Amino acid sequence: MFRNFKTVSRVVFGRGCFDQLGDILAQKRKRPDSPMVFLVDDVFQESRLAGRIPVQVRDLLIWVNVDVEPKTFYVDELTRMIRENYTADRMDHLPEGVIGIGGGSTMDLAKAVSLMLTNPGSSADYQGWDLIRNPAVYHVGIPTLSGTGAEVSRTTVLTGPEKKLGINSDYTVFDQIVLDPELITGAPANQRFYTGMDCYIHCVESLSGTYLNTFSQAYGEKAMDLCREVFLDLVPDSDDKLMMASYCGGMSIAYSQVGICHALSYGLSFVLGLHHGIGNCIAFDYLEEFYPEAVYEFRRMMENHNIELPRNLVTGIENDKLEKMADVALMLEPLWENALGSAWKAVMTRDRIKELFRQM
Amino acid sequence: MFRNFKTVSRVVFGRGCFDQLGDILAQKRKRPDSPMVFLVDDVFQESRLAGRIPVQVRDLLIWVNVDVEPKTFYVDELTRMIRENYTADRMDHLPEGVIGIGGGSTMDLAKAVSLMLTNPGSSADYQGWDLIRNPAVYHVGIPTLSGTGAEVSRTTVLTGPEKKLGINSDYTVFDQIVLDPELITGAPANQRFYTGMDCYIHCVESLSGTYLNTFSQAYGEKAMDLCREVFLDLVPDSDDKLMMASYCGGMSIAYSQVGICHALSYGLSFVLGLHHGIGNCIAFDYLEEFYPEAVYEFRRMMENHNIELPRNLVTGIENDKLEKMADVALMLEPLWENALGSAWKAVMTRDRIKELFRQM
Repeated sequence: MFRNFKTVSRVVFGRGCFDQLGDILAQKRKRPDSPMVFLVDDVFQESRLAGRIPVQVRDLLIWVNVDVEPKTFYVDELTRMIRENYTADRMDHLPEGVIGIGGGSTMDLAKAVSLMLTNPGSSADYQGWDLIRNPAVYHVGIPTLSGTGAEVSRTTVLTGPEKKLGINSDYTVFDQIVLDPELITGAPANQRFYTGMDCYIHCVESLSGTYLNTFSQAYGEKAMDLCREVFLDLVPDSDDKLMMASYCGGMSIAYSQVGICHALSYGLSFVLGLHHGIGNCIAFDYLEEFYPEAVYEFRRMMENHNIELPRNLVTGIENDKLEKMADVALMLEPLWENALGSAWKAVMTRDRIKELFRQM
Repeated sequence: MFRNFKTVSRVVFGRGCFDQLGDILAQKRKRPDSPMVFLVDDVFQESRLAGRIPVQVRDLLIWVNVDVEPKTFYVDELTRMIRENYTADRMDHLPEGVIGIGGGSTMDLAKAVSLMLTNPGSSADYQGWDLIRNPAVYHVGIPTLSGTGAEVSRTTVLTGPEKKLGINSDYTVFDQIVLDPELITGAPANQRFYTGMDCYIHCVESLSGTYLNTFSQAYGEKAMDLCREVFLDLVPDSDDKLMMASYCGGMSIAYSQVGICHALSYGLSFVLGLHHGIGNCIAFDYLEEFYPEAVYEFRRMMENHNIELPRNLVTGIENDKLEKMADVALMLEPLWENALGSAWKAVMTRDRIKELFRQM
């Protein structure tokens, strides 16, 4: 059985294409005043971008905060707020669509809210694989950071009371993405690097994994080539290339899986609240044994970009926290199996995982 | 303005995934007996594949002949036949879907018939750009040859009474493609080569063209890399890679255009009835002046695969036929502009085009 991969149905790519958003949404508004909800990273509150968002009179623009990664609680709160707004407005229907503008966390919020507007209960109920029953409202992703591939993936990674795990579903996939390389130009250098490395690392993991087929290999190799152009060759049009690397990296996940670094990074994020990109970088630097050439190349990229990784985040941590990190990492069985084969449990014991964490 | 690119919504890729077709269609049949129409290249009539097509009781399996490239007349005839079948059957609705199984020509037939079932008049009325008004019925593409990228393109190339030109429309795009590399294994060596070169040549043209952006460049470069692996390095899993080359080549057309070779090849096909792939190869061999390195590489690929191109097809042709070839080629203005810039008419005169044709 091969996955029948659901793709993003509409893609627009180009410098300045953000300005086509108004026209794109107009075609989706059933009536001229059908409302849309914009979830926008609050770092843009005072930016020039804020003034370019095509907000209409009944639309809702919500500035979202992603200083910490999205929590199921926050998704539920946003969903409730949006529902209430349109009930108070005496409109008996949901908003026509949800548009996320921001990095991977904002993409995840937009995907999750678009799902929860049409599915009952808490978003925590749907963390897992194919638990969503009803299609989401129309949802659009507009990345302002590149690397995670959240713009094309079928997951929205959330931290719930019990676990950090995605809502994985065909309904999660965006209906439209707007890929405007100009939007990622202003990102802080560190953040750009960590997010870009998310792409690089997940290609390393998927290309060396046991789950790979030629479809995912082609996308993974291209994403990797583009990452090298951006972070080693330092090509001039690097924003365009980084945006395509992220897209290709996301597509490569169709028939592949990430590996050891991502499993450990989930543990770091859950316990220490680290963002996914930096979590990956911290973990990857200690995985020379598993991915020797790639870790060496990664360090050259860090040097090129004068990146200093935070150190000693886990050393001296309370034992129960270390155990929780190991719990979260061990839960991600497909990742371990992809990296180490079906007999992975013999290779990667709980003690060895804790030993790896203790170095970080 | 950047094109808001419509993608194929569902992609399944993998050796043997053809056997998932029954399940995929079952989910699209509104009632268990909702009918589907299979258009299948008649070369498979006696093949093992024929027995694996999941035909149900009210479905229609039509063996199509693509010895010559699809004509608007043939599309209209097939559409009429299908409509009549379901009227005679006292069913007041159209078939639920159309599934094309074959090479690029069969893909084009399936796309065109799925459009003509919901749009009035003749398919010749819609040759051009965005003339289709109503969405097609659900349509699925299952390639058995790789290279043209017809499985992901927004065109269906037809030869009408007046011209060879595609029905270019977002509605043309397949809803589902089934990419099973095992299906291309048995293709005759010549045909496989010519079709594969269609991908190679269109990447040469798009990557050197003036219309390119980074999205299309990434896909075009990957398609080119894969073509080299298949036709120069002769890698073992070449069916898988050729299938992905075709897919990536097709995707690269989103923000790019083909060039001189395709324009000339359209002329050759219209007048001489040549298939698109071989037409491209014949034309490309005389375009050293425009694409020197690529023509050299193409000749190495021919040598590797012991391909002897037909020669002297145009020499001594009647003058009115030569003029018609030039007419068809000159009509394709975006191709010339992509290749030679906006002042292309100064470089590529009618006489020069005829001179190029006369060598072939």
